[in-house]
Amino acid sequence: MPLVRISVRAGRPEQDRRAIGSAVHAALCDTAGVPPQDEFQIISEHDAAGLIYNADYLDIARDDELVVIQITLNEGRSLEVKRALYARIAELLAQSPRVRPENVLINLVEVPKENWSFGNGEAQYA
Amino acid sequence: MPLVRISVRAGRPEQDRRAIGSAVHAALCDTAGVPPQDEFQIISEHDAAGLIYNADYLDIARDDELVVIQITLNEGRSLEVKRALYARIAELLAQSPRVRPENVLINLVEVPKENWSFGNGEAQYA
Amino acid sequence: MPLVRISVRAGRPEQDRRAIGSAVHAALCDTAGVPPQDEFQIISEHDAAGLIYNADYLDIARDDELVVIQITLNEGRSLEVKRALYARIAELLAQSPRVRPENVLINLVEVPKENWSFGNGEAQYA
Repeated sequence: MPLVRISVRAGRPEQDRRAIGSAVHAALCDTAGVPPQDEFQIISEHDAAGLIYNADYLDIARDDELVVIQITLNEGRSLEVKRALYARIAELLAQSPRVRPENVLINLVEVPKENWSFGNGEAQYA
Repeated sequence: MPLVRISVRAGRPEQDRRAIGSAVHAALCDTAGVPPQDEFQIISEHDAAGLIYNADYLDIARDDELVVIQITLNEGRSLEVKRALYARIAELLAQSPRVRPENVLINLVEVPKENWSFGNGEAQYA
Repeated sequence: MPLVRISVRAGRPEQDRRAIGSAVHAALCDTAGVPPQDEFQIISEHDAAGLIYNADYLDIARDDELVVIQITLNEGRSLEVKRALYARIAELLAQSPRVRPENVLINLVEVPKENWSFGNGEAQYA
């Protein structure tokens, strides 16, 4: 159910992009009850003019290795779960592919369960 | 009003991508009361490392012809309308460009009417 | 906090794309209380088959210079603020890089404050 959009600067090795996706998915499974098979991600690369960021908003030092993660998922996660998710994403990305925690920007978009169809034209969660 | 984001693997012929967009739009008109002229779509292509999916979540057999469709639209559609929309998208995509129904993943993001400007800096629906 | 996704047809000069991003951000600061440093944007280019639009929905004359702007931001802005934001985006884009107001399509997606992490795995707004 989560549909994860990840945006990074172009030029990163493919294995790094795959590791980023894997880390985000593992964090969703570890903290937010997402089933391991429920993995759907779109990972896009952008040139310098295509990924604009502030390098120190909230006194957090970002650089061109910024990873922007927007996750559409079912509503209803508690603040505790969201906090745990953010922390786990940053922790796993630091392990591999060694993304600095300052470079991890996350946004959640929540939707009701009936807003998904996983195939066959059916609303599997409704 | 719907803003439709469609993501597919790169390499599909342009006419197939256009047919995918047309099928999604026709389904929105047929089932969700969208005016025929109200068509706005962004269709992106991704390499293998850029479009990650599980090949059998919920026992649905997906492959590289997966079509990920995220539709931002006005809130208020009933569950019946959403079910009809999912079914019609899958039905029309099966007709052209012959997308298997298992390869149709849909997500809806709902917003209030005042969250749109269609030009001229005005909130036409508010 | 706003995460801004901007989509344009490919071929526009890089300086134009940068000017588009700057105009949208300035409008957010001017009308919606966004801090100047709070700037995060993803600007994507698309070919003709990748950016589909209706050329006169609602009797607004659009062309290939259409700019599609989807802004994810904190919930709670009033209708007045949203109207001011739309008007200001169109006004500033008309100044630079001279986008016709008819070519400015805007959509807002609102989320609660706890749905953001700006780095370090923390929920800075919660």
